[in-house]
Amino acid sequence: MKKLINDPEQVVRDMIDGILYAHPERLKNVPDTSVLVRADAPVHGKVALVSGGGSGHEPAHAGYVGKGMLDGAVCGEVFTSPTPDQVLEAIKAVDGGAGVLLVIKNYTGDVMNFEMAAELAEAEGIQVTKVIVNDDVAVENSTYTTGRRGIAGTVFVHKIAGAIADQGASLEEVERVALKVIDNVRSMGMALTPCTVPAAGKAGFEIPEDEMEIGMGIHGEPGTHRAKIESADTVADQLLSLVINDLNLQADDKVAVMLNSLGSTPQMELYVMNKTIGKVLQSKGIIVHKTYVGEFMTSLEMAGCSVSVLKLDEELTELLDAKADTLGWK
Amino acid sequence: MKKLINDPEQVVRDMIDGILYAHPERLKNVPDTSVLVRADAPVHGKVALVSGGGSGHEPAHAGYVGKGMLDGAVCGEVFTSPTPDQVLEAIKAVDGGAGVLLVIKNYTGDVMNFEMAAELAEAEGIQVTKVIVNDDVAVENSTYTTGRRGIAGTVFVHKIAGAIADQGASLEEVERVALKVIDNVRSMGMALTPCTVPAAGKAGFEIPEDEMEIGMGIHGEPGTHRAKIESADTVADQLLSLVINDLNLQADDKVAVMLNSLGSTPQMELYVMNKTIGKVLQSKGIIVHKTYVGEFMTSLEMAGCSVSVLKLDEELTELLDAKADTLGWK
Repeated sequence: MKKLINDPEQVVRDMIDGILYAHPERLKNVPDTSVLVRADAPVHGKVALVSGGGSGHEPAHAGYVGKGMLDGAVCGEVFTSPTPDQVLEAIKAVDGGAGVLLVIKNYTGDVMNFEMAAELAEAEGIQVTKVIVNDDVAVENSTYTTGRRGIAGTVFVHKIAGAIADQGASLEEVERVALKVIDNVRSMGMALTPCTVPAAGKAGFEIPEDEMEIGMGIHGEPGTHRAKIESADTVADQLLSLVINDLNLQADDKVAVMLNSLGSTPQMELYVMNKTIGKVLQSKGIIVHKTYVGEFMTSLEMAGCSVSVLKLDEELTELLDAKADTLGWK
Repeated sequence: MKKLINDPEQVVRDMIDGILYAHPERLKNVPDTSVLVRADAPVHGKVALVSGGGSGHEPAHAGYVGKGMLDGAVCGEVFTSPTPDQVLEAIKAVDGGAGVLLVIKNYTGDVMNFEMAAELAEAEGIQVTKVIVNDDVAVENSTYTTGRRGIAGTVFVHKIAGAIADQGASLEEVERVALKVIDNVRSMGMALTPCTVPAAGKAGFEIPEDEMEIGMGIHGEPGTHRAKIESADTVADQLLSLVINDLNLQADDKVAVMLNSLGSTPQMELYVMNKTIGKVLQSKGIIVHKTYVGEFMTSLEMAGCSVSVLKLDEELTELLDAKADTLGWK
């Protein structure tokens, strides 16, 4: 295992400490937890947003904590749902009296643990609502998941729901906008290589040297199929088509695109992919409002990428464009 | 070779086209070149900054083109210096009448080609000055280089010289500040794995499964030595010590730190490294003004990282903190 780590069992704790050394002006740690919140939390009178899940997807989710996005992120062990008590600590630390929205990626463990935390918080008098993101069009039901999985499209929920919360909207309004994003975002990914969870010490599976897996999940869950590696043109077209069809996009629809590296796929390759994506969207008359390219929701050092498309109306466009100040949003 | 590309010979062209599809509001291409400049170039009356070099180091350098940093970037073939005519096209496209500063990483090919371009531009009546960045403390002289190599510390030059140019400084002043950054920045890197240049189709060298190379260059140039992989604590301390000693840092000195992934090293590992870096600097009484963690100057999908430290005075601090609007600066 070629990794720059110390004790594999301490990797999340070490990461959190390293984040705190790097960004004390932005983030603070709720003592004795793996929760990172805005340095100025709680923001009184503002609806707070909390997300999180297993670690290993950085910058998701701690990289999205800051003005205009999340108020707190719960960092579970690598690829492992955080426990309800950790989520509860996050909720309590960010609640500014206007309620808390939980943004949950659709994995059974996350859904269960965040829901349990919501109940505990409500018992303590905090108003909590949750939304579940299921943007991955690859497969219905999967390892760890009933229904579709939540992947990089989740970051659009953080951005847009975070923006309306920042403008002073009520919990009900923030939830409405978050659900609108979820209704209008779809993603599809693929992988060229596996990744290694530090505590496991070796890759969870193998992909032959000349093959790729289409539709693979961000924890290495099976996709739709394996195939011989194709050109970037072919792969980009294939991923994008599934997303376009599922969203039922038509000419003159306006979209935002996110091209996300799963970890070791360099920006060079993402932009090569985006040449095809830009060209195909243009040929269909679909209007690209903005394209985001980089690492948004990774899978440790997995090689591969995902394409997310968000269908925009006027409200979503304005909230997407609103200023946010976090490390991971570009 | 597991890469999302089309024709290996067209990878830089495809990348540039993909960048233009993604960011038309930020960047434009000088027709029939591999030069990317600010969408609003030339900015009349402002000193312009041009950098570049071989591709494969993204976001360097096109990701630093924009307000407050570079005006133009020349994208050579992968790991290959751009030709003088390409650099000349960049100079001509960004010159706003106040002169052009070339920021060159110290590789023999880059220095020669950028110098030749400067002469050609001067013959056309454009005032051009150049600075050469040589921040890598690993080795004196190397493959492709006489003297020390230029690596991730170059990005601090883009940021700080770009900031003073943005404030309307003269070419002489911008050069002075760029040289001040170069005098005060040092870097040291290490690699866990090699990377594959698309046109070559296979890795240029190998590193055994249990070894790392200390001081490796961003094109895979030899470092100081190979060693068994150590803990992040040990590696971080080793890299940082060389940088601190070379800069002769003392207690109460103020610095900015950049922890740069060479490509496939995930943010999780960078932050684990930063725990040690933050702790060591604190223990020495060195004041960390700001820490930058992420991908700043990569080497395709190489695993490994570099640590850069910039010693700050009041002027450099203010210029570092000035607002910049580019894709790669966080």
